[in-house]
Amino acid sequence: MGNIRLTKLREEMRRRGIDIYIVPSSDFHESEYVGEYFRAREFLTGFTGSAGTAVVTRDKAGLWTDGRYFIQAAAQLAGSGFDLFRMGEENVPEISDFLKEELPAGGVLGFDGRVVNGAQAEKFREIAGERQGSLSVAEDLLDPIWKDRPPIACPPVWILAGEYSGESAVSKLGRIREKMEEEKADYHMIASLCDIAWILNLRADDIEHVPVFLSFLLISKESAILFVQPDAVGDETAAYLGACGVEVDAYRNVYSAAARLPERASILLNRKYVNYRLISALPESVNVIDREDPSERMKAVKNATELQNTRRAHVKDGVAMTKFMYWLKTNVGKIPMDEYTVGCYLDNLRAQQEHFLDLSFENICACGPNAAMMHYAATRDKKSEIRPEGMLLVDSGGHYLEGTTDITRTFILGPVTAEMKLHFTTVVRCNLALANLRFLYGCGGISMDVVCRKPLWELGLDYKCGTGHGVGHILNVHEGPNGFRYKIVPERRDSGVLEEGMITTDEPGVYLEGKYGIRIENELICVKDEKNEYGQFMRFEPITYCPIDLDGIVPELMNEKEKDWLNAYHAMVREKVSPYLTDEERAWMEVYTREIV
Amino acid sequence: MGNIRLTKLREEMRRRGIDIYIVPSSDFHESEYVGEYFRAREFLTGFTGSAGTAVVTRDKAGLWTDGRYFIQAAAQLAGSGFDLFRMGEENVPEISDFLKEELPAGGVLGFDGRVVNGAQAEKFREIAGERQGSLSVAEDLLDPIWKDRPPIACPPVWILAGEYSGESAVSKLGRIREKMEEEKADYHMIASLCDIAWILNLRADDIEHVPVFLSFLLISKESAILFVQPDAVGDETAAYLGACGVEVDAYRNVYSAAARLPERASILLNRKYVNYRLISALPESVNVIDREDPSERMKAVKNATELQNTRRAHVKDGVAMTKFMYWLKTNVGKIPMDEYTVGCYLDNLRAQQEHFLDLSFENICACGPNAAMMHYAATRDKKSEIRPEGMLLVDSGGHYLEGTTDITRTFILGPVTAEMKLHFTTVVRCNLALANLRFLYGCGGISMDVVCRKPLWELGLDYKCGTGHGVGHILNVHEGPNGFRYKIVPERRDSGVLEEGMITTDEPGVYLEGKYGIRIENELICVKDEKNEYGQFMRFEPITYCPIDLDGIVPELMNEKEKDWLNAYHAMVREKVSPYLTDEERAWMEVYTREIV
Repeated sequence: MGNIRLTKLREEMRRRGIDIYIVPSSDFHESEYVGEYFRAREFLTGFTGSAGTAVVTRDKAGLWTDGRYFIQAAAQLAGSGFDLFRMGEENVPEISDFLKEELPAGGVLGFDGRVVNGAQAEKFREIAGERQGSLSVAEDLLDPIWKDRPPIACPPVWILAGEYSGESAVSKLGRIREKMEEEKADYHMIASLCDIAWILNLRADDIEHVPVFLSFLLISKESAILFVQPDAVGDETAAYLGACGVEVDAYRNVYSAAARLPERASILLNRKYVNYRLISALPESVNVIDREDPSERMKAVKNATELQNTRRAHVKDGVAMTKFMYWLKTNVGKIPMDEYTVGCYLDNLRAQQEHFLDLSFENICACGPNAAMMHYAATRDKKSEIRPEGMLLVDSGGHYLEGTTDITRTFILGPVTAEMKLHFTTVVRCNLALANLRFLYGCGGISMDVVCRKPLWELGLDYKCGTGHGVGHILNVHEGPNGFRYKIVPERRDSGVLEEGMITTDEPGVYLEGKYGIRIENELICVKDEKNEYGQFMRFEPITYCPIDLDGIVPELMNEKEKDWLNAYHAMVREKVSPYLTDEERAWMEVYTREIV
Repeated sequence: MGNIRLTKLREEMRRRGIDIYIVPSSDFHESEYVGEYFRAREFLTGFTGSAGTAVVTRDKAGLWTDGRYFIQAAAQLAGSGFDLFRMGEENVPEISDFLKEELPAGGVLGFDGRVVNGAQAEKFREIAGERQGSLSVAEDLLDPIWKDRPPIACPPVWILAGEYSGESAVSKLGRIREKMEEEKADYHMIASLCDIAWILNLRADDIEHVPVFLSFLLISKESAILFVQPDAVGDETAAYLGACGVEVDAYRNVYSAAARLPERASILLNRKYVNYRLISALPESVNVIDREDPSERMKAVKNATELQNTRRAHVKDGVAMTKFMYWLKTNVGKIPMDEYTVGCYLDNLRAQQEHFLDLSFENICACGPNAAMMHYAATRDKKSEIRPEGMLLVDSGGHYLEGTTDITRTFILGPVTAEMKLHFTTVVRCNLALANLRFLYGCGGISMDVVCRKPLWELGLDYKCGTGHGVGHILNVHEGPNGFRYKIVPERRDSGVLEEGMITTDEPGVYLEGKYGIRIENELICVKDEKNEYGQFMRFEPITYCPIDLDGIVPELMNEKEKDWLNAYHAMVREKVSPYLTDEERAWMEVYTREIV
């Protein structure tokens, strides 16, 4: 049948003399999740996952994605003309290797300079250079093909009150200017939408589930300019920005503003976030200080207000989840259920909580073999029936005015095999091992990840993704620089040292293709423990409050310490959530948070 | 009283207008252990540890060293005029911060350009540049002060036969030339003495316990030149080198040879190993490809011959250690013993083994509080008596024609406290946890280190050093790129991925200043385990064969798995070592390798 969009793209390439064209999954800000306007890679390939890059040559077409999406991508790419390249697998070339191999001598490598960051574009430029070729970056070649492309969204920007942010925009700008001073930078350009929203205590709904707004922020020693779509800024927000000392200019004007920076000025920016066209717009004499945005670490370290509010958000979220668990386990097999309607039921329970804003991501509600796809999403049309057998994996979360949540539970629906119980118990052991790790300050997640995986590795099992990610505060549910991962993946930017106040998820799993999937995810606040001659010890405070289904646990497979950990966790959950349950739910919860021996 | 050497150095500095002078612990090759000629930092400060850098300003003098040496350095620096800077401790500035603070505007920063590597020198140059200052690197300012400086050693270079090396020099040169081809390098300059010795299958005894020889190796596509002291190369070695296609030139000629490289040639070299003067000698048009020396990883991955021979070396070493343990524990309190004579007794047992070449490092034989100093060395004049109480820590190893060993045992000499037993048992648990870790290929030591430290961290304890290091094959007992450490320390170059055939030590410990020290060290070969859909699983084979003193173990503090691990280890030790013991020793060993329950 052939992929007509791919054929048309090749025509556009041929017309411009472009030999290879790259279509990443990005907006102009390196956002992980992007608005509909920016889903060019999805439009081209049919693959809907959040991460993936398409590369098209005159006669080949490939899509690169990571372990979370191997199963889903293989299914969605069927008949698309795109070959799946499973990143990190043996004998699978990286994109750069593929380009080196495929770019003809003197060839032209193309991409839209706004959707590729400066650091990555530099690498593409080197590859083209090695082949005596060149780049073509001025155009978005999808534009002429994509007839019904959605417009760029422009919802109103609103102010997050001080009782929720815990620190004023003026104070945050002051801290950033101190860092600029340290780095001897006259200017600082911020492209990260989450960082801009955090700094200015502003939110909106440009991107589904990520309450940010398209913008760039240019800070100098005395001033700050927010480049934003004019229609997004109402009177109240405009007045607020004025009071914060922030000028407003049109979103598209950022490129010309960059071009007008004074000669020999120094500008702090992260080449991994700022897009290639914007960096290229700077006068040549400008000195780029390529560093992490200071706000990246600042926003990851939650302040006392954010932490206290986040705990409150988790109590509400835990109440919704526990009510869901009660309903699911009590009614499965008695009333009709499928993945889609059950997911909606849960979304509705969350939406009933006070100060609920949005889901923090599209929920994953997957039973049987569907749960082996890490990022499966059931739809009204494509869903499986839920029956009283096997397991249901539910990964979900919400944004509340108090904060953001992300939780996964796997529920036992009926009879399960001994193998399922072994795997379920092992995943719980993995989760608890990490949550109860005491460690010395200075550790990054890369040094702790194996503590979590160890019980699975002993069985010859693994999960093909990191163990956890930082969680934004009413921002992207995934944020750096914290995370748990045993190999550094530079583009993930999640191998930073764990600081007091950072929140990270702990979500090991077992995924058996064609059989089932199990994941147990809690969020952990990094807190200080004892300080002594050896240094500052740190530990985790779990803030996810929902029972872990004891029907999946084989106590004989756990040692005494592990049983103590699980019992202590369940006692805490019971204390936090019980006050908000009905009598029936509370009685049921007593059973499902009972001590195991 | 004052340090007359420091005063004289300041006179030399003043005479040349140098504001700050840096004296590292290095030879011209970034060797960890250096010949006597190169011990300028020790001469200047009195501190004898292997790692440390002295920095002298007009009115300040500091010595920077790491956690292994804090206690020793504090003692040895008393009255030297040098302040101790404990690297990695809170509020202790790094050398670079100190230089930035102390270098006056337009000041001169000095060091001998041959004892600082190119990468480090570049950083010093940047610091001087920030202060509008300059470098002075042409002279060794210690030379005029150090009247009785020992000459540079020049022992004969000998050939390691193929039955021990397992691969010919010609084959190794071929593999390196393949890597040069990949990197598009016309030349490759190797400064690492261990790498040169490994590539050419040559050894000597320039540096105590490190059987290498001063040299540089310059490889081109067709030729190779060894720059070496002429007197070190006898007829046989000269003929051998000729047969391998390696020319010989004088050691000092390397700088002029570098200067004569063709214009625009490309040269592969590691700026972290090649000294600043040598890099500065290259014509400006030469393109430096700054990479790890390919030989670094090649030599760390031991071939089948090296591995099989190394296991044999460990059996001999284990026999010496077990005989020593028997003698020590049977005779303590009955005959006079002190740290120095007991250390000599052990050295002598090693020397009696067939094919013994040298100790792989000066043994550490330390009882009571001395053992809290990680690198304590007793001498004929300064030693403690060994009495039937507390513990004795012995860290030692040997070079044999078959390979190199490194082992630490802590022996119980008499009554010990419950705290000692708790700490002893915990260190054993740490050691076993790492040795029995099954992991996926792709892990570096940075991801595994915490598995070892975890039991100690639970008690609020730690050791201020890495958990383990790579072991050279009749080379430096410490080698990269493998190691176990939970934070990357770039200059250690030990955070590489663990490959099949690499050998790494596993040596957790407890060090209580003024009280005692405990360390248990085994060597581990990285071997392949099951390969399945999740990837290649790896595990460790322990190759250190000597009982772990059961008198220090409290079985109740270990879980079933840990007891199984220890029992399996002791059964293996008994099988390997028993055949070489006397009847009395063998009977004793049955008791000390018994199953614990």
